[in-house]
Amino acid sequence: MSRDPIARAQSADINGERLWRRHLEMARIGATAKGGVNRPALGEKDIEAHALLATWARERGFSLAIDDIGDMFVRRQGTDAHVEPVVSGSHSDTQPTGGRFDGIFGVLAAFEALEAIDDAGIETKRPIEAAIWNNEEGSRFVPGTMGSGVYSGRLALADSLATADREGATVAEAVAALKRAVPDADVRALGAPIAAFVEAHIEQGPVLEDAGEVIGAVTGIQGSRKFYIEVKGEEAHAGTTARRHRKDAFVEAVAMVNALHEIFHDAEDLVRFTIGQFEILPGARAVVPGKVKFSIDFRHPEIAVLDDLGDKVEPTCLSHARACEVTVDELPRSPPVAFSGLVPDAIEAAVQARGYPWRRIFSGALHDAGNLARLFPAGMVFVPCERGLSHNEAENAKPSDLAAGAQVIADVLVDLANRD
Amino acid sequence: MSRDPIARAQSADINGERLWRRHLEMARIGATAKGGVNRPALGEKDIEAHALLATWARERGFSLAIDDIGDMFVRRQGTDAHVEPVVSGSHSDTQPTGGRFDGIFGVLAAFEALEAIDDAGIETKRPIEAAIWNNEEGSRFVPGTMGSGVYSGRLALADSLATADREGATVAEAVAALKRAVPDADVRALGAPIAAFVEAHIEQGPVLEDAGEVIGAVTGIQGSRKFYIEVKGEEAHAGTTARRHRKDAFVEAVAMVNALHEIFHDAEDLVRFTIGQFEILPGARAVVPGKVKFSIDFRHPEIAVLDDLGDKVEPTCLSHARACEVTVDELPRSPPVAFSGLVPDAIEAAVQARGYPWRRIFSGALHDAGNLARLFPAGMVFVPCERGLSHNEAENAKPSDLAAGAQVIADVLVDLANRD
Repeated sequence: MSRDPIARAQSADINGERLWRRHLEMARIGATAKGGVNRPALGEKDIEAHALLATWARERGFSLAIDDIGDMFVRRQGTDAHVEPVVSGSHSDTQPTGGRFDGIFGVLAAFEALEAIDDAGIETKRPIEAAIWNNEEGSRFVPGTMGSGVYSGRLALADSLATADREGATVAEAVAALKRAVPDADVRALGAPIAAFVEAHIEQGPVLEDAGEVIGAVTGIQGSRKFYIEVKGEEAHAGTTARRHRKDAFVEAVAMVNALHEIFHDAEDLVRFTIGQFEILPGARAVVPGKVKFSIDFRHPEIAVLDDLGDKVEPTCLSHARACEVTVDELPRSPPVAFSGLVPDAIEAAVQARGYPWRRIFSGALHDAGNLARLFPAGMVFVPCERGLSHNEAENAKPSDLAAGAQVIADVLVDLANRD
Repeated sequence: MSRDPIARAQSADINGERLWRRHLEMARIGATAKGGVNRPALGEKDIEAHALLATWARERGFSLAIDDIGDMFVRRQGTDAHVEPVVSGSHSDTQPTGGRFDGIFGVLAAFEALEAIDDAGIETKRPIEAAIWNNEEGSRFVPGTMGSGVYSGRLALADSLATADREGATVAEAVAALKRAVPDADVRALGAPIAAFVEAHIEQGPVLEDAGEVIGAVTGIQGSRKFYIEVKGEEAHAGTTARRHRKDAFVEAVAMVNALHEIFHDAEDLVRFTIGQFEILPGARAVVPGKVKFSIDFRHPEIAVLDDLGDKVEPTCLSHARACEVTVDELPRSPPVAFSGLVPDAIEAAVQARGYPWRRIFSGALHDAGNLARLFPAGMVFVPCERGLSHNEAENAKPSDLAAGAQVIADVLVDLANRD
């Protein structure tokens, strides 16, 4: 792409009040008693969120498209019908006790950018789009960043569609329900080329807030490995079974956890090691546990550390099993991602032009932009969130910071959508 | 009571084939795919088990009664209408992955004794009864041995009726459902005097099987203390939140568990310490756990050890909380029980008269007889179970051993029901 000085001179000022109002409207869909949001991927509430965005899109005359894995795209046409779009967006699903900004901010920032550009009457050569990538969180359907993962070819479509939630409902059924809820959506081909992708997101960490900065230009995303461990012992009576006769799956799982905690402890505190699921079966007070299932979420910026420590999970668990059997399964890995070139350069140019306090920042969380960067020029914009809290109902962000993030998105879209 | 030599001479031989058949019929109610039984207290299946026993009782002309906490009594009248009954029985509820003999054997042994005595045309002075005590297991409604606990005054009726299961259904509603399913049952007064109580049960341990013995004459029941611990931290993003900023409820709960395992470890292997429930909230792979709830089931024959070690649970948990808050709740204690006098003497006399290989044995498990011994002469008869396995779908017992246990119950009932 080459810079077009005439289009470059144009700019659209976003409407921060409208952006904030749309956040409050979305936060009502799946609202929890504690002020958070519970919107499992393509569950009833998440589909309601998609339908609301579709309603706003139709009011603007924007067009809609959905792909076979349930990603949804709102398009404002460009002047050239035959070129790839510039896309912005994120996700609308949440963790079970999620907040009001994780994901949905990136969707609404993109949509606000489209509206602001429309309000300003700016024509772009390329179409510009606001996207909702399906199932970013991975808490209803495993693994997460599924929509962008299938779109970019990292995950297989058939396997993903067959994935079921705990009640046995499949992704295929959920996608069909989305298509029914947005019946006027066109079909978007998976992997259809994108000229550039830019995602806005809350930081989910404390760096920007602590530094008093408004924008983080993201330089990359740390890699992750995810494991599921199953420890199989034998159920027995808690009152009569002597310790020496027990095959207590809980006791042995805890021994594994202790060994893992030791191995994954780093003085620098860069390793992110989390056991977020841990289930005892049958889970009765008077029964020695016959089975334990637990998850490991391990992230690090360096691929060598991911390889080295991650490869120790299975042997560590096996070596701490005594009377029990243990199996270790690993989900597909997410290697570290580096953003460079077109999109980060456009982000930095926009931030500097607007004069926002900013820094370059590395992402601890996975994002859809990580998948899309495999195929397309991509980048991310972070805004601060209160105390760095996320995946928590108390998650919070300032309207003025959200507005700054959306403004950068609007400026980047205008810039990139006018390049060849 | 004084011995009556004429009645004493009478005896009824039980029908082992009929007893076994009734076990198989009962095992179909709530049968699991792995050959076990799942019959939550006064759930649909457990009420079906009560109704089946009531049907068999009516065919015999026995009368039925239910008390206000849902205990059910099948009565064969004696010659004296104004004296207290001699009662045998146990429970029909199971653990979620329970077996075919735990509890129901004591019910069916008592009922077989009534039938055998009826078949033999033996008249007893006292009425004899087969009882099903409600909610012995405590896995649907907490705490267990609830029916006998309320009957004997250890637990309060109102509190127990208000107890709800995880779906919010109360004991009161479950008892009402039982009464509707057995509409011809009389009302039995809670605490109505019982001349003597004898309970048959599988051993739930390996001692009798290992020794090649058929009957255990139970000398007492070990005491127990039960705790529920809640650890409250803060949910956070697993990818972005540094270890030093986490309030990880799982990590701190595991530290408590490690300290408890160390404190409760005894070289003699007499301490029974079990963590059978351990729940993470919200339980998502990518969320640092905000809350953990776990149970402790602690049993020991000696009250001094129960006091000493049990009193260390709360301070140990508190001292291992760092960033999290911890609360420790204790359920009502079950002190150790000693059986002596009338009932154990009658059991030993019957066993010796029949010539069964036997021993005196101490019970590791709680039983309804422990509650009833607070008010009435009481005792227990154990029979072997395969590998000592119980609270397990693979639980098994030999028809000949079950028959021997029922025979002892029949002999004890005839003996005690003819004493003054």
